Amino acid sequence: MEKNDVAIIVGSSSDLSLAKETINVLKKFEVSYSLDIASAHRTEEYLKQCIEGAISTGVKVFIAIAGMAAALPGVIASHTILPVVGVPLDGKNLLGLDSLFSIVQMPKGVPVATVALGKTGAINAAILAVQIIAISNDELKEKLKNYKIKISETVVKENLSLQKDGIDKFIERLNK
Amino acid sequence: MEKNDVAIIVGSSSDLSLAKETINVLKKFEVSYSLDIASAHRTEEYLKQCIEGAISTGVKVFIAIAGMAAALPGVIASHTILPVVGVPLDGKNLLGLDSLFSIVQMPKGVPVATVALGKTGAINAAILAVQIIAISNDELKEKLKNYKIKISETVVKENLSLQKDGIDKFIERLNK
Amino acid sequence: MEKNDVAIIVGSSSDLSLAKETINVLKKFEVSYSLDIASAHRTEEYLKQCIEGAISTGVKVFIAIAGMAAALPGVIASHTILPVVGVPLDGKNLLGLDSLFSIVQMPKGVPVATVALGKTGAINAAILAVQIIAISNDELKEKLKNYKIKISETVVKENLSLQKDGIDKFIERLNK
Amino acid sequence: MEKNDVAIIVGSSSDLSLAKETINVLKKFEVSYSLDIASAHRTEEYLKQCIEGAISTGVKVFIAIAGMAAALPGVIASHTILPVVGVPLDGKNLLGLDSLFSIVQMPKGVPVATVALGKTGAINAAILAVQIIAISNDELKEKLKNYKIKISETVVKENLSLQKDGIDKFIERLNK
Amino acid sequence: MEKNDVAIIVGSSSDLSLAKETINVLKKFEVSYSLDIASAHRTEEYLKQCIEGAISTGVKVFIAIAGMAAALPGVIASHTILPVVGVPLDGKNLLGLDSLFSIVQMPKGVPVATVALGKTGAINAAILAVQIIAISNDELKEKLKNYKIKISETVVKENLSLQKDGIDKFIERLNK
Amino acid sequence: MEKNDVAIIVGSSSDLSLAKETINVLKKFEVSYSLDIASAHRTEEYLKQCIEGAISTGVKVFIAIAGMAAALPGVIASHTILPVVGVPLDGKNLLGLDSLFSIVQMPKGVPVATVALGKTGAINAAILAVQIIAISNDELKEKLKNYKIKISETVVKENLSLQKDGIDKFIERLNK
Amino acid sequence: MEKNDVAIIVGSSSDLSLAKETINVLKKFEVSYSLDIASAHRTEEYLKQCIEGAISTGVKVFIAIAGMAAALPGVIASHTILPVVGVPLDGKNLLGLDSLFSIVQMPKGVPVATVALGKTGAINAAILAVQIIAISNDELKEKLKNYKIKISETVVKENLSLQKDGIDKFIERLNK
Amino acid sequence: MEKNDVAIIVGSSSDLSLAKETINVLKKFEVSYSLDIASAHRTEEYLKQCIEGAISTGVKVFIAIAGMAAALPGVIASHTILPVVGVPLDGKNLLGLDSLFSIVQMPKGVPVATVALGKTGAINAAILAVQIIAISNDELKEKLKNYKIKISETVVKENLSLQKDGIDKFIERLNK
Repeated sequence: MEKNDVAIIVGSSSDLSLAKETINVLKKFEVSYSLDIASAHRTEEYLKQCIEGAISTGVKVFIAIAGMAAALPGVIASHTILPVVGVPLDGKNLLGLDSLFSIVQMPKGVPVATVALGKTGAINAAILAVQIIAISNDELKEKLKNYKIKISETVVKENLSLQKDGIDKFIERLNK
Repeated sequence: MEKNDVAIIVGSSSDLSLAKETINVLKKFEVSYSLDIASAHRTEEYLKQCIEGAISTGVKVFIAIAGMAAALPGVIASHTILPVVGVPLDGKNLLGLDSLFSIVQMPKGVPVATVALGKTGAINAAILAVQIIAISNDELKEKLKNYKIKISETVVKENLSLQKDGIDKFIERLNK
Repeated sequence: MEKNDVAIIVGSSSDLSLAKETINVLKKFEVSYSLDIASAHRTEEYLKQCIEGAISTGVKVFIAIAGMAAALPGVIASHTILPVVGVPLDGKNLLGLDSLFSIVQMPKGVPVATVALGKTGAINAAILAVQIIAISNDELKEKLKNYKIKISETVVKENLSLQKDGIDKFIERLNK
Repeated sequence: MEKNDVAIIVGSSSDLSLAKETINVLKKFEVSYSLDIASAHRTEEYLKQCIEGAISTGVKVFIAIAGMAAALPGVIASHTILPVVGVPLDGKNLLGLDSLFSIVQMPKGVPVATVALGKTGAINAAILAVQIIAISNDELKEKLKNYKIKISETVVKENLSLQKDGIDKFIERLNK
Repeated sequence: MEKNDVAIIVGSSSDLSLAKETINVLKKFEVSYSLDIASAHRTEEYLKQCIEGAISTGVKVFIAIAGMAAALPGVIASHTILPVVGVPLDGKNLLGLDSLFSIVQMPKGVPVATVALGKTGAINAAILAVQIIAISNDELKEKLKNYKIKISETVVKENLSLQKDGIDKFIERLNK
Repeated sequence: MEKNDVAIIVGSSSDLSLAKETINVLKKFEVSYSLDIASAHRTEEYLKQCIEGAISTGVKVFIAIAGMAAALPGVIASHTILPVVGVPLDGKNLLGLDSLFSIVQMPKGVPVATVALGKTGAINAAILAVQIIAISNDELKEKLKNYKIKISETVVKENLSLQKDGIDKFIERLNK
Repeated sequence: MEKNDVAIIVGSSSDLSLAKETINVLKKFEVSYSLDIASAHRTEEYLKQCIEGAISTGVKVFIAIAGMAAALPGVIASHTILPVVGVPLDGKNLLGLDSLFSIVQMPKGVPVATVALGKTGAINAAILAVQIIAISNDELKEKLKNYKIKISETVVKENLSLQKDGIDKFIERLNK
Repeated sequence: MEKNDVAIIVGSSSDLSLAKETINVLKKFEVSYSLDIASAHRTEEYLKQCIEGAISTGVKVFIAIAGMAAALPGVIASHTILPVVGVPLDGKNLLGLDSLFSIVQMPKGVPVATVALGKTGAINAAILAVQIIAISNDELKEKLKNYKIKISETVVKENLSLQKDGIDKFIERLNK
């Protein structure tokens, strides 16, 4: 069995496109991961196996992506002492408030580290997982510092080209 | 082991006063029940035992009372094919919307029969459980009909005494 | 007059596509049903006839699908001691919160078993109705157990093919 | 049977203190009224009698005060072509949003004239009823004009005494 | 100057398609109306002229359609003792909650009769206006009774054809 | 007539305790103000006089404090080209969301500068008004800089005494 | 370095289309402006430089446009004693409520002048900035008066052509 | 300078009672911590010093507790690559939704690990911080396992005494 640093679990195959966003970030940081589909409500026993499998291979952080009455992150948190990052789905029926509240409002003793809804959350879950692993990994710390510099420089570069080209040309280029 | 018709599970001992409301109604209908405290997030394994214990003794309906990221009703529903009635807690931080959304927004295939928030829900969960059991129990059907007549007559009687005494005297008596 | 186990009532012909979801599930379980359009606010008397007709033919559960100020499930519940399952419509003006609150917040003594909003709710209303009928029907119990196994196996199979094919191929196939 | 202009119906005896606010306003305008307790969900048949009784005595406007899944105003509207004014209860579990949405979101063809939540709504329901009756009653029109002048003068007087006494003395007097 | 029974005022020309729904209903009932565009915030003085003009020609009910911080219905109500019906716009930024709250939460003494959001509200505003005028107009009362019978019969007919044709054929025909 | 820099208008005498917070800040900055009670819905004409009176005496900024369907700030904005600061009331029925949405969601061309709900907003409205006047008043600019330094130093001092005394002693002192 | 009256800062290049709306208004009033992209969370240090740069060139008002956990306006306000106008983004995940609450609910002493969500807010931020600058600029005051007259006349003209052409022709022309 | 594992920062001295909850948990796990009061909006520069001070002493996780437009956790996250846990305040004006949305909805690249609102969140922030530090600390892992067992056993013990004593005696004891 492979040894991974992050175990990603999605509650439904329809959440995989979000997981893809998470994976893209983890790959950039060369952080290894596993990915499973397992539903808290439909495959309770199988989910437990996935969690225990991941734990036994030495995973350090869980990332759970789920919608509606999103029990997945909380159920994972009930099975492990590892940090669990929860990504609420956005947009459907109740704006994702159902998913957000189901993930963030965990009872005493069983936290889930909740990030933003939807795609932004899927990306930030990866960053947060990397930050967590990095607290005892100087190489990852370096990469995070570089990443932080890079996202900062991207904004600065955009601003410089906005100053140079003016807003109309800039927007035109954005829309291309 | 005792045989009961309804298994009530609360997620925390602080929810027992609501369970008391449920029990009072079940007692009036002479419907037997068990009552357990078991948390979906803190006692995952023990909860499973409670559920399986209840099932093995022939329980017909589950009632689950829980607050915040209320995973309890859904986790019970994931373990059984019996109807699960969910009571969202009211009032705290997010008006009980966290609890309501976590209970009602269950995924396809795993419904939870959600009732009103708080005390009204705790009472109605009992009525709903009795209604469910009554579909194959003529004696309970009779009792439900009488109950329906009684709650109707209570309102009619109130109205008659309102007509007789006038609003001021009526309110005065209410407030005593 | 036909004898059915479930009486489905929709508040408007525009809700029939949701009812279709409910019916598809009931058919799989070979549970008989009737289907009526009857509005609580526009056809109060006719609705009463539909309810009484259904009751007189021995129906065991009502399913009511309605939007906005969704009085339909509650009005049915006021006319019967049978369990009433309510499906709130999703999406329109107020996200379906109008429909959800109008259905779930029933007063003491007159519960409506509320399920998720929209299509998921329409499916889950059928499952819940089957679960209710199954408490005194061993054949249906068997079918529910098989259904539970099947929805679980579907997820497991998806996960196995995700592990085999990788996320990109999997998503590509999903989108076909 | 007495002939009244306004029929007030409350869904529960606990709503009578609000009805008292409505009545106080109607009395000032010398508009006659009846007052009944009748629940849409618990006394469906009796409510119908109340409505029909009121209609047969020539009532011109209905005022309905109800909370939670407040079906009362809508059910009255389904039974009459008279204007129905609905007062949502405030404060409980869901801030009164359950009551507000259940009253205001009526389907096409069956409007309920919804006013503000709680005490303000109970007062404004009376004013609205008077306004409605006044469209063919010049004496009431005069009274409404005087009322409008009076509430305006009250504010102006308050402002004059604020200017004279200063804010500290004014607030002190208010709090007495 | 023409004499009309209903004065419709919209806050912006972009609300005219909703006003069209209102007008279509009023025409069916042969109730005369005026229609103006006048903004509470942009044409305060002109709005006042429109209101006073309408009042001077003997209008009986105002209907105001407005979105966002919808001050229009309330400002009209501040200028008249006639009943004012308010239609909140739906859908934009805040689901129409901005518009709904701005219209329904009027202070003591100055009610606005609020109806449902959007198109349904625009239709129901007309029905409510007709109901108000009808309290002293027997011909209109007859028309409202016929309308009520007609909308009821429409539902009954739909149900009969659903029973005859089955859901699939019915839905197919709906979608044509 | 006195010449003031800021005109404060409250919609009801019950809002004066909030206005007191605003005034206390203005006094610290030695900015002159007038204070009026005038309701947009109950004293439309008188409000207009207050606004015009204030404008004629050379006021530079309006501050309007109002609750529920808070039309006051918007109506002031419709009468003037001066900046209008709006303070939504907090707490009542709808958490102040009615007031917030009614104030912030102004249509194109007629902005209201909305600040936080309740007491914080009442204080910040004064600061904002001072900031606005200060753009052409160097003395006020100096005072604002000192104020900014002072509120910063207050926090720093608190932190230093927390470091010195420890949390228990600090909290104890706070609660005295 | 150029001297500008208004400094516009957007939190992301994707907000530039909103900034364009702000700029179009400022141009009409011939008010000079600078425009920068600088993120409170990604370019904290660079943002500070932008703010200080703008201040040093004598800017009078800041306008900040930002979405989600919109810290940008507040961070600017923490660095300056100049008035800061905040524009919440609309529409995404949480309807823009995340952005609105993050901008309007500033703590004591550090106000942000919040305007409507989205495009309307972007336009109104410009108007508000002009109003603020105009309090010591008579030429701008004149322009604002003319603008106010013009937006009023636009509505009046629309109404006149509605009266002349009728609603159907008017709507038809609108939709062209 | 002391070396600590966790740096707790609160936005205001009024948040210290929540911080006390966090500290109590950290103490049980013998995890060292620093505690500072520093406001993102009022002491921007000082906050930066606190953050940099904490980083320079080798802190591993930040915990930020803040209310309203809670920029504090996000501003910390903008200054560090360490994991930042955010605790939204509950209860005030907007139910804590302002604080929750301001903390959880962080932009891409700058996550904040958000936990439940109020006291539960303050406790869970500590648990989450311990979980994060524990990924490279076997002793802490053991403590977390024991903690998990203990909170589970507490519930089981409560249930056993509920079974033994019955609900009435149990509730009576709870309320003592």
